[in-house]
Amino acid sequence: MNVVEIIRKKRNGAVLESAELKFIIDGYVRGTVPEYQVSAFLMATYFQGMTKEETSEFTRLMLHSGDVIDLSTIHGVKVDKHSTGGVGDKISLPLAPIVAACGVPVPMISGRGLGHTGGTLDKLESIPGFKTNLTINEYRRVIAELGLVMIGQTKEIAPADKKMYALRDVTATVECIPLIAGSIMSKKLAEGIDALVLDVKTGRGAFMQTYEQSVELAQALVEIGTSFGKQTVGFITDMNQPLGKAIGNWFEVVESMECLRGNGPADVMELTYVLGGMMVVLGKKAANLEEGIQRCREVVENGFAEKKFFALVERQGGKISYLHHPDRYPISKHRVTITAPRDGYISSIDSLELGLSVISLGGGRTKVDDVIDPKAGILLKNKAGDHVKAGDVVAECFTDNDAAAEAVIHRVANAFTFASVQPKSVPLVISIVDKDGVRPFSL
Amino acid sequence: MNVVEIIRKKRNGAVLESAELKFIIDGYVRGTVPEYQVSAFLMATYFQGMTKEETSEFTRLMLHSGDVIDLSTIHGVKVDKHSTGGVGDKISLPLAPIVAACGVPVPMISGRGLGHTGGTLDKLESIPGFKTNLTINEYRRVIAELGLVMIGQTKEIAPADKKMYALRDVTATVECIPLIAGSIMSKKLAEGIDALVLDVKTGRGAFMQTYEQSVELAQALVEIGTSFGKQTVGFITDMNQPLGKAIGNWFEVVESMECLRGNGPADVMELTYVLGGMMVVLGKKAANLEEGIQRCREVVENGFAEKKFFALVERQGGKISYLHHPDRYPISKHRVTITAPRDGYISSIDSLELGLSVISLGGGRTKVDDVIDPKAGILLKNKAGDHVKAGDVVAECFTDNDAAAEAVIHRVANAFTFASVQPKSVPLVISIVDKDGVRPFSL
Repeated sequence: MNVVEIIRKKRNGAVLESAELKFIIDGYVRGTVPEYQVSAFLMATYFQGMTKEETSEFTRLMLHSGDVIDLSTIHGVKVDKHSTGGVGDKISLPLAPIVAACGVPVPMISGRGLGHTGGTLDKLESIPGFKTNLTINEYRRVIAELGLVMIGQTKEIAPADKKMYALRDVTATVECIPLIAGSIMSKKLAEGIDALVLDVKTGRGAFMQTYEQSVELAQALVEIGTSFGKQTVGFITDMNQPLGKAIGNWFEVVESMECLRGNGPADVMELTYVLGGMMVVLGKKAANLEEGIQRCREVVENGFAEKKFFALVERQGGKISYLHHPDRYPISKHRVTITAPRDGYISSIDSLELGLSVISLGGGRTKVDDVIDPKAGILLKNKAGDHVKAGDVVAECFTDNDAAAEAVIHRVANAFTFASVQPKSVPLVISIVDKDGVRPFSL
Repeated sequence: MNVVEIIRKKRNGAVLESAELKFIIDGYVRGTVPEYQVSAFLMATYFQGMTKEETSEFTRLMLHSGDVIDLSTIHGVKVDKHSTGGVGDKISLPLAPIVAACGVPVPMISGRGLGHTGGTLDKLESIPGFKTNLTINEYRRVIAELGLVMIGQTKEIAPADKKMYALRDVTATVECIPLIAGSIMSKKLAEGIDALVLDVKTGRGAFMQTYEQSVELAQALVEIGTSFGKQTVGFITDMNQPLGKAIGNWFEVVESMECLRGNGPADVMELTYVLGGMMVVLGKKAANLEEGIQRCREVVENGFAEKKFFALVERQGGKISYLHHPDRYPISKHRVTITAPRDGYISSIDSLELGLSVISLGGGRTKVDDVIDPKAGILLKNKAGDHVKAGDVVAECFTDNDAAAEAVIHRVANAFTFASVQPKSVPLVISIVDKDGVRPFSL
């Protein structure tokens, strides 16, 4: 088989055979197909796309470039959630223990933040002592004991994806739905799950900024999951403004604790219950979404969910004392307040700008080896739709970096827009996508 | 400047600035931009193309990645010809001395054969002793002495193109008109020419198989030449059947000698006179094409052209005794005859198949470091339109390779098609392309 002919075939818009995809992926992992040919293949794929069958096959080959974890000895339907990433998106932290407390095992392998969106691993690691780099054997043991585990990607999981993602990042071939979908699903399918709930963000702070692109990605993900025999349900959710009021790793842990106690911001509670309710349904612990949400509410109210989270943190080495006493956590050198310039309604809060601001404060990365300051971040005092008076504090920014403290004021202030009339409220959960298609979401 | 952003910009169909093209080309030559980014850029360019201005700028940057030879001290308008390559295309060999004999200096830097089309250098080197690897200083001396020089590309000429061409070859990004045009013109403009005649082949044995693509390429080449202030005229010529009756390096030298004496096959004579006539016009030694062709005929008839070629061969180390006595040249071990299976007219002779057959006989390369057997090749006894009887020899194949001698029979026989009625004759020179546009060609 000849790599140039395979690239040419894709370039000309033909459908590649499994053996041809395998030749490129396996060759790339083994080092017999050079990066310059893989990048040409990726760019050709960017332009010509892949059929459903090709995308599914591409995913299968990436999945089997590494180990597929077998959790068949764990009782129950194992369900995970994947989010395409947003600003202030800490949902995994309350969600996983809530669903586990409902009796549905949640084996979760998460990523780090890169760019303006945060990552679950960074948030968990802001809890002193919390270890996310468990081995596959430890991963199995924790899920067997607790019905819950939250770790980072190991080198055994989809090594082809790891290598290819790094190449896409430097060759402007990230924004391609079959490649995105294959990358996400090859990692998720390696976890040992039976079913998957997807949170595909849309809007200003999302990876997919338009609704149409978000639906297209959700459909590709659902199709792949379904083709692997895993029940997969996606939700399209709004990411025009940040989720909740806390952005920054430790702040998001604190907000997650509030959420586990039933006191989180309305949008975080709502999304956690919708995603959690669907996970409980897929985990066969509820007959329908309403019942699933009801189960989730119960484990929040009776404290089982919070207990499950404490058990997880302790089991993975974290100090729960900080969760009980967040006031003991270190505080940033600078606390910068942002005030409303006028009376009126907050009409929008630009989540992309706030995500980028948090990076500048030290709370995120621009390069994979950047060190994160877990206490850096932004606390919003209000959300879009709220009425404020001129001079009211709308946000506080926290950083140890003198220059950033100075520079952030203007940027964060500009992320807010104000209006004299109350803006129309937009739904947080917009649509649901499953194997039967896309429908507007309502409870 | 950020390479990923430049690739993304081209991928999204935007026009790149000169500084952005320079960043990629210079970085690639210096090794600061890795091949995997260049190949992604090339594939994005394959899909999005380049504007006229971008193509011209791309060419200028490739040209200035190396030396631009200054021939301003050489008297006269220096004119060269470039052909996009064909089967049996030995035109440069008679053409250059004919034009030089008309008083127009011809500084010619040629390439080697790769794939099914031959290369001028390989044909010249089939003359024992002929040296094509002159230095730039020797090149200048020979053109100053003889008004003619024929060499191969040196490392000083367009090194960016050399590196990028090799990368395009292995990443399925060869077939892209701005990249092809930039590659051709960056090398031609480095020669020190004042004007250029282009022979853009079209049809089965050509690089551009459709007429439309050939016109598009010719226009791109003319636009670049014009933008550099060089008078550039292109001809679209037929390559559905081989040019002349000889294919294979030494056989083509012999046919070229016949042509220089006015006895070459009709098609070779016609094309040589049309291209040569135009070169003489651009070289300001004739007022119009008819007059230019007349000048060329004169130097063939009075023997000046042949003398000029002998002078060149001797000056570059070749033994002219073989040109006087081609019967002294070594002969292949096998001579395989191909006969007509039926009475009738030859309706077509597949030039691509014959070009590939010559490679298998040892007369061409599939890899750049393959060694060529100069005496291998095919001699046609007839051309399309000729009437033959069943059993008549239509072609002879020459090779030292036992297996090839066996295998070639079927392939060459199949390259001929026969019909009961005489096929419509197609024009050899189809169109002329200059800065004013494309017109059907007629004398």
